[in-house]
Amino acid sequence: MSLVDDLPNRVHLVEMLPRDGFQRLDEFVPTDEKVEIIDALSTTGVDEVEFTSFTHPKAVPTLRDADEVAARIERRDDVTYRALVPNLVGAERAIDAGVDKVNALVTVSETYTKKNQNRTRTEVLTEVEDIVAHAHDHGVDVEAGIGTSFYCPYEGAIDREETLSIVDRVVDAGVDEVTLATTMGLANPVEVSEAFGRVLSKHPDLDVGLHLHDTNGMSLANTLAAMTVGVDRFDASVCGLGGGVVLPGDLSGVGNTPTEDLVQMLDRMGVPNGANFGRVESVAHDVAERLGLGTPSHVLAGGTVERVLETVERDEGDNDV
Amino acid sequence: MSLVDDLPNRVHLVEMLPRDGFQRLDEFVPTDEKVEIIDALSTTGVDEVEFTSFTHPKAVPTLRDADEVAARIERRDDVTYRALVPNLVGAERAIDAGVDKVNALVTVSETYTKKNQNRTRTEVLTEVEDIVAHAHDHGVDVEAGIGTSFYCPYEGAIDREETLSIVDRVVDAGVDEVTLATTMGLANPVEVSEAFGRVLSKHPDLDVGLHLHDTNGMSLANTLAAMTVGVDRFDASVCGLGGGVVLPGDLSGVGNTPTEDLVQMLDRMGVPNGANFGRVESVAHDVAERLGLGTPSHVLAGGTVERVLETVERDEGDNDV
Repeated sequence: MSLVDDLPNRVHLVEMLPRDGFQRLDEFVPTDEKVEIIDALSTTGVDEVEFTSFTHPKAVPTLRDADEVAARIERRDDVTYRALVPNLVGAERAIDAGVDKVNALVTVSETYTKKNQNRTRTEVLTEVEDIVAHAHDHGVDVEAGIGTSFYCPYEGAIDREETLSIVDRVVDAGVDEVTLATTMGLANPVEVSEAFGRVLSKHPDLDVGLHLHDTNGMSLANTLAAMTVGVDRFDASVCGLGGGVVLPGDLSGVGNTPTEDLVQMLDRMGVPNGANFGRVESVAHDVAERLGLGTPSHVLAGGTVERVLETVERDEGDNDV
Repeated sequence: MSLVDDLPNRVHLVEMLPRDGFQRLDEFVPTDEKVEIIDALSTTGVDEVEFTSFTHPKAVPTLRDADEVAARIERRDDVTYRALVPNLVGAERAIDAGVDKVNALVTVSETYTKKNQNRTRTEVLTEVEDIVAHAHDHGVDVEAGIGTSFYCPYEGAIDREETLSIVDRVVDAGVDEVTLATTMGLANPVEVSEAFGRVLSKHPDLDVGLHLHDTNGMSLANTLAAMTVGVDRFDASVCGLGGGVVLPGDLSGVGNTPTEDLVQMLDRMGVPNGANFGRVESVAHDVAERLGLGTPSHVLAGGTVERVLETVERDEGDNDV
């Protein structure tokens, strides 16, 4: 049986750079520049942009301008503007700021939850119910982003049953969609397909997504594995810029799947996804230049059919001279 | 249906660094060092090592010591020693030097064949018959490595029918196994699974393998796709070192799948493959240091569960002081 038969009819893409990327930089990107970059990222054809996190300014100082960013970005009708919220206060701020969707953060690992949100998992899960009630009162959707769904930097491998039980809890809390996150970028295709296989067998109509970091280089393989079991929503970050705020320095930059590499794969495989590859490539190039990121993805390093053929033609031309 | 059900029972790995890697370096690696590295690579548990190419010394000067290398490496009983041969003269030299298997090179693209082997595709295919006759007379196996099976740097996308017709020709010539090569590293998982699906539907008992370059970052995803349609032999190169000899400078280093990243994925997915991951990681680390390659793979950059947990523990320990 060919995997081609199992591919989704349409993949929904979420651009994460403004939250996962800006969050991990040591330096504060000025609000003007953030707004320009977010506005550019909103024109690439991705369905959704996670444009900031409404977190306490002391917890994530690089995103302390969340309210101002929300007020100043251009809102396009064809883009869903989502923000991460670690708690009810954050959700209230986000909704006051006019987001379309909040991403309520829950982590499976008790240790990581304590370090990242300074509370217990039970407290976080209880608050998700309050976030759902408040958001739905205001006509705003709620996604639950499930951090450390596979591995935790403090606890190691996460028991699959724990992850599944957290999914059950947030579904019971009434969230509109659930995203499993490979916070450490260490999951493999078998783990990914098994986890989603079990989630979807219990909750067949649940809107599920995958948030991938790429520490082990398997993020495109994991994307492929997830698609074959029915996952059709993926987070990605232009230039792969992303990372965790409570990780040690060496690990703080565990990048996301680069949006440009993901869109190239989907397009070349013929999986419709809404994004315009040329526009994604161009915005990624600009972002890499503005933020001094070098060539952090295969696409930006020239790994496309068009760039390879151009390089050869240029070289052949030189030889003629 | 889960992809787990379609995975092979055992994957056969071929270490390519001594041919694809040494070939692409600008500098000649001294024979003593080559022999030491090949001997180390023979202890990682991979099934096969392509240890050199018997090519005219002027065509690939960095491999001009093929005969001496063949004479000096240690031959382990559990490893198949294979060499690339571009023509009958090369096959005769390789067989005189005591190889277990020759990899007869054929490229689908007429332009690439001309540039790389300075002859027509028809001439090359005719010579494959002579290579098979000579090799089988001497009890030596023949693999046909089919270059530019998907994309050519000069001709662009290769017509699938052309690739399939070359496979038919080498099967008719009596080769023992066939490997499709993504010479430019631009193939995607749909192309890979469709191509092998068609090859195996016509030649169900053929021993097929995949030689991946990773220009577009999809090599692990391509490996996964290939496994789900029945491919169970993969070429890979420690540190991902590899590239084409007739490509322009910017493109000459289109790396292979790093063996350490591939073995990590197979091991974590539970696919038996013979290699010892710890040993592969250690040899890859040594090779990267000897050849000054930096951290050219996800594994060498610390992208394993063990290294991530070690990093966190070290950091937590520092905080206690």
